[in-house]
Amino acid sequence: MEQPQKTEQPVEQVQAQEVDAEGKKPSKNALKKAQKEAEKAAKKEAQKKAQAEKQQPEEEDPLAANYGDYELIQSQEKTDRVWTPVRCIDESMVGKNILVRARLQNSRVKGSIGFLVLREQFADIQAVIAYKEGQVSKKMIKWVGGIPKESIVDVYAEVTKPEQPVQSCSQKVELLVNRIYVVSRSHPLLPFQLEDASRPIKKGEIEMEDYNVVPTQPEEKKEEKKEDELNIIVSLKTRLDNRVIDLRTKANQAIMRVQSGVCQLFREFLYQNGFIEIHTPKLIAGSSEGGANVFKLKYFNQDACLAQSPQLYKQMCVMADFDRVFEIGPVFRAENSFTHRHMCEFTGLDIEMAIKENYHEVLDLLGDMFGYIFEGLETRYKVELETINQQFPFDPFKFKRPVVKLTFEEGVKMLHEAGIQQDPLEDLSTETERKLGALVKEKYDTDFYMLHRYPKSARPFYTMVCKDDDRYTNSYDFFMRGEEITSGAQRIHEPEFLKKRAMECGLNVDTIKDYIEAFKYGAYPHGGCGIGLERVVMLYCALGNIRKSCMFPRDPKRITP
Amino acid sequence: MEQPQKTEQPVEQVQAQEVDAEGKKPSKNALKKAQKEAEKAAKKEAQKKAQAEKQQPEEEDPLAANYGDYELIQSQEKTDRVWTPVRCIDESMVGKNILVRARLQNSRVKGSIGFLVLREQFADIQAVIAYKEGQVSKKMIKWVGGIPKESIVDVYAEVTKPEQPVQSCSQKVELLVNRIYVVSRSHPLLPFQLEDASRPIKKGEIEMEDYNVVPTQPEEKKEEKKEDELNIIVSLKTRLDNRVIDLRTKANQAIMRVQSGVCQLFREFLYQNGFIEIHTPKLIAGSSEGGANVFKLKYFNQDACLAQSPQLYKQMCVMADFDRVFEIGPVFRAENSFTHRHMCEFTGLDIEMAIKENYHEVLDLLGDMFGYIFEGLETRYKVELETINQQFPFDPFKFKRPVVKLTFEEGVKMLHEAGIQQDPLEDLSTETERKLGALVKEKYDTDFYMLHRYPKSARPFYTMVCKDDDRYTNSYDFFMRGEEITSGAQRIHEPEFLKKRAMECGLNVDTIKDYIEAFKYGAYPHGGCGIGLERVVMLYCALGNIRKSCMFPRDPKRITP
Repeated sequence: MEQPQKTEQPVEQVQAQEVDAEGKKPSKNALKKAQKEAEKAAKKEAQKKAQAEKQQPEEEDPLAANYGDYELIQSQEKTDRVWTPVRCIDESMVGKNILVRARLQNSRVKGSIGFLVLREQFADIQAVIAYKEGQVSKKMIKWVGGIPKESIVDVYAEVTKPEQPVQSCSQKVELLVNRIYVVSRSHPLLPFQLEDASRPIKKGEIEMEDYNVVPTQPEEKKEEKKEDELNIIVSLKTRLDNRVIDLRTKANQAIMRVQSGVCQLFREFLYQNGFIEIHTPKLIAGSSEGGANVFKLKYFNQDACLAQSPQLYKQMCVMADFDRVFEIGPVFRAENSFTHRHMCEFTGLDIEMAIKENYHEVLDLLGDMFGYIFEGLETRYKVELETINQQFPFDPFKFKRPVVKLTFEEGVKMLHEAGIQQDPLEDLSTETERKLGALVKEKYDTDFYMLHRYPKSARPFYTMVCKDDDRYTNSYDFFMRGEEITSGAQRIHEPEFLKKRAMECGLNVDTIKDYIEAFKYGAYPHGGCGIGLERVVMLYCALGNIRKSCMFPRDPKRITP
Repeated sequence: MEQPQKTEQPVEQVQAQEVDAEGKKPSKNALKKAQKEAEKAAKKEAQKKAQAEKQQPEEEDPLAANYGDYELIQSQEKTDRVWTPVRCIDESMVGKNILVRARLQNSRVKGSIGFLVLREQFADIQAVIAYKEGQVSKKMIKWVGGIPKESIVDVYAEVTKPEQPVQSCSQKVELLVNRIYVVSRSHPLLPFQLEDASRPIKKGEIEMEDYNVVPTQPEEKKEEKKEDELNIIVSLKTRLDNRVIDLRTKANQAIMRVQSGVCQLFREFLYQNGFIEIHTPKLIAGSSEGGANVFKLKYFNQDACLAQSPQLYKQMCVMADFDRVFEIGPVFRAENSFTHRHMCEFTGLDIEMAIKENYHEVLDLLGDMFGYIFEGLETRYKVELETINQQFPFDPFKFKRPVVKLTFEEGVKMLHEAGIQQDPLEDLSTETERKLGALVKEKYDTDFYMLHRYPKSARPFYTMVCKDDDRYTNSYDFFMRGEEITSGAQRIHEPEFLKKRAMECGLNVDTIKDYIEAFKYGAYPHGGCGIGLERVVMLYCALGNIRKSCMFPRDPKRITP
């Protein structure tokens, strides 16, 4: 069968375009207004149309049984039908009749022939519906042409081998439709078109696509554009407002699978190394790491807040003899900041372990762990990473063994040598971190490294001070592509010392009495870290914005969906 | 070496006993007062003593290098010393010199000999310290006798084989101490003794041990008791108030490992069956399942609440084409109820999946999953389950394949036949559930079963109604030992039907607009369930109180530690 032409956008699915016909960007307000009006009008018409289309095929078609809308699936049936997943349909099945349930990604019907694209998660396949006496009527083909995109259909079809393998789909064979039924009909007016949301961007373009900004094309290039190259850009805001649709793109399907993979690899490694999983409370009486940036709430008659990290609790678990613990759970930060890498709720991968004598025991284990995760992603998530790369191109992540470890002082020295100012006893700024990342990449050819022995001023009171130089601490941050993804340290396990440090840091010791109490009855020296899951995924795939690696992101302005 | 006698309680470790010398239970207030006074006095003395003991051994002992307190471990050292885990010390190592880091569980010193018990998590071992010229001085033995229980020590020792295997410890060989150092000294006054918290209880006694109640012995038996049989009972409240100490008991070490195991088995099975892991927001704008029992908070300038379940979000993930998803995460319920099975924060194991035609697809998968978990616990967590059984004896959990599935109507019929009243169109009470569980156990010899097709009145509005009888729904609960651990259903995936049901249930449709919107653009028929992790562990091990299977439980009165 021949390849169908690029699908034209049916009238009822046209959305309020964010770039007008001349390629000029209208003002934001005008855009909004136009969009609203267009939506209103289209909605009305669409509702009428949807109503009409929902009806079953006309009685007079003798082949009416071969198509139509299913009645609502309420578990009234239990058959032995077998549905074949789209990703499994290949040449070995040519000639077989199969049943497929998938979304109608696209359809183009002309007279007695129609071309459909059926999508199921990652995979898509071309299906052809053609007039055939006693099987497929012209009415049926017309009816198929009216099924809205994104509807879910059951297709009974024969697997056929086209003369040329289908280029535009993941599956290289075709389906020849015998019967087709709508399982669930989509509203014909989508918030945006899947193909717009799936369009590849150029390398480097990623930083531009900020939350509130519709990226513009460089002025001089605009005029050269042909009509059909006029790409509608779906802004991140529109995507996130309609996340259920947005997540259906292949890249997002892949990103979320990579996220799931990071968690699984993290756990696998830790289980192999004697860790157990814990679940610690998110509702706590005090604040977990100082008073700022805490969400507060009423817990019956008491004041409570949401845990900013499992810090205290994971330490308590080590004091309770669990030796090595990890937790994957939500972390809450009421930080009113609006950057590409901060969210108010994110998933923390937390680790805490007893150490025998030195925090390098933690560093060595964590180095191996990140190696396990990165190598696991490369081998097990090859297809997913390629899929992401097709829409959001990125350089493969470079990881070197043994892991590059630099002391803070060494890092500062590298910065100074490159002519970058940095106080050796103050924390790095995000900007300086990025510069140091670039220097490290240049020198060591790695996108991952560890920086340790941070100055005391840059770390919380419970961080263990270095024995040999009390201006520094037994602490560390890890970086991916020059951005921080992990923070950790050896903790102070001696109650009197902990009190002293708290007071030096200006804390009211009374408010952390319970915390200090936990170390009173024999305390193992220990250390650990917290890792931001979404940051790891964002930086591994160089996505440029943390909202892209989170299913339903939360920032100071966003609490829905 | 001979077995040491039962250790006497050293004076400085005596706690305010909850039962007085005559075995009579004093009033609660008197108890509290006495305890406080005793604590105060003991505290003072203990502090003095601790100060004295903390000092290094006297200079004049020429063997002083063989014992003493380490200086604070601040990562100043990085040696190639190897510590042998206590659980690994066995006969194959006899004659070897090893280094062990463990808690001093117990010590009994008499003149030139001392017996220690060293504990590391599950495992314990007896260590002997005896006078030996040029190695172990009498001063050293005396010093060892003064180390408070629960302190952490480094012991250099030779593995020896006693004439009789050590009965009281998990390891059957002994250690002959050459050198011993305190890594971290415990406060000498423990909130309670580990041996009191580890004492086995009798079968059935478990139900008595309620949250606020110190269990009493039957009056008539009290006088027969000998002094040394006078068991101090550590109430659940005291345990939870001092959870870091409490969790150190072998049973608790085992319970939390079983909990970790349930999660791991759950995930293993789901990964094998094409599920991916998701993390959905806990901070949401509306309330996830109706307005009641929700913790509310301010999210910057907006009103927000804590998710009562990932219900909406996991459904959205299926609508976003992820097909099969699971989440392990905290679930928040502001329920002011005070039972053995409710908490205000617990860990939910949530599942949602697309179904082709019938909710039995979910039931079959979940039946296999629970089988996988129960069988995995039996085989991989044998030692843990035995350990729990030693303190809290329970009947092994019976699981039958194929899983027993009863319709609600069948369940009601069984109740009626047993003379128990039950409206066939109303939900079961907890009491009736327990009775039905007993009937099912009697008839089918299983501790696990599924009850499905609940009446409409008993389920939330989004539950799919049965096609053949709209008084019932495509819903289900699962039971372990007669108590509910799982609730789930096929959900309504058709927006108009969902609206209709919401209105019938008296909901304001406007408040759930976003929820309904999620099904507008092509919706897969789907179903799922939510499982209470702590309930599964509690009921599998028949612990009698959910607070025992949660690391840091939260109920209306408890938000610390």
